[in-house]
Amino acid sequence: MSRSIYLAGPEVFLPNAKEQGEAKKALCQRYGFSGLYPLDNELDESITSSQYAQALAWAISAGNEQLIQQADVIIANLTPFRGASADVGTVYELGLARGLNKTLLGYSNDPRLFVDRTKALFAPAEPAFDLNGDEIMMDRDGLAIENFELHDNLMIEGGIRLAQGCFLTHETALAERLTDLSAFEALLRWLVEH
Amino acid sequence: MSRSIYLAGPEVFLPNAKEQGEAKKALCQRYGFSGLYPLDNELDESITSSQYAQALAWAISAGNEQLIQQADVIIANLTPFRGASADVGTVYELGLARGLNKTLLGYSNDPRLFVDRTKALFAPAEPAFDLNGDEIMMDRDGLAIENFELHDNLMIEGGIRLAQGCFLTHETALAERLTDLSAFEALLRWLVEH
Repeated sequence: MSRSIYLAGPEVFLPNAKEQGEAKKALCQRYGFSGLYPLDNELDESITSSQYAQALAWAISAGNEQLIQQADVIIANLTPFRGASADVGTVYELGLARGLNKTLLGYSNDPRLFVDRTKALFAPAEPAFDLNGDEIMMDRDGLAIENFELHDNLMIEGGIRLAQGCFLTHETALAERLTDLSAFEALLRWLVEH
Repeated sequence: MSRSIYLAGPEVFLPNAKEQGEAKKALCQRYGFSGLYPLDNELDESITSSQYAQALAWAISAGNEQLIQQADVIIANLTPFRGASADVGTVYELGLARGLNKTLLGYSNDPRLFVDRTKALFAPAEPAFDLNGDEIMMDRDGLAIENFELHDNLMIEGGIRLAQGCFLTHETALAERLTDLSAFEALLRWLVEH
């Protein structure tokens, strides 16, 4: 039986979420893997009452956790989503897969460092400096900005590293940031070789 | 031996991160638990070379994962952080704890629904409507906004629910949002009773 890969990422929020999933699954198959796509694409079902909305959410959550349980590998699209960091749903799934001792792979279609991206969005109006003249990495609310030459919060790349997985970045046009599959395909090649 | 609780949350980025950790640990002790605070408060160490920065990041990541491994419970501060969602480091840790079958507890000091918070930050200039006249929940980039009457991405509250844990919200003044411990203490009481 071919190894299965859970396809985590914020593309479930795209208008063509299903097509994106199909494209990823087709690539998986080309490399000899079986792709498992999350159920979040049921988002577009008509939701009327609050009780029904929550019941649907619980069903999607349980379904996705089950898919991760049965997968051998997770490939997480960690491209920034509505801010400086990756989509929290994807990050939760990456952590879950780590706890279940799966193979962890991740990619981001934004090669900028986390510190630069965070500063671009949340830097104070005037930079602050310490007694040595070094810039203090702090946002406009006085909260520390991680400065580790990584691409997001250290737990993310750190977890992938602890799992002896692989994290890649790839530069794309802004419009293709959530959909470009070059880095995704590079990770499939990495899997074949490892 | 008393049950131990991993204290996940973005307060590690506060200028008084250590004091916040001490306050949480003291509360844990008062309820008969032992609190484990993440190592991210080493953030303020002077970091010079890129190699050293990454080595420090890997050490913090490995240390935090080890603390989560040894904890019986995680209490995650899921208050929004630099956007509509919780801190991704905290969310990764929650997922990891779920995969390790720990008791999952979480709180947010922002009681607003995720859909309302996301719309407040990312709604298009003009709302869009479907053929039935219902508003289409879509952000200004055309990405779907989750509308499940939950407080963040559904995987978060969904995971806590699957683990039979507890998620609470509490309304605080903006300035106390990351530091108010009312909901945290309520979860300690919940733990004592369950």
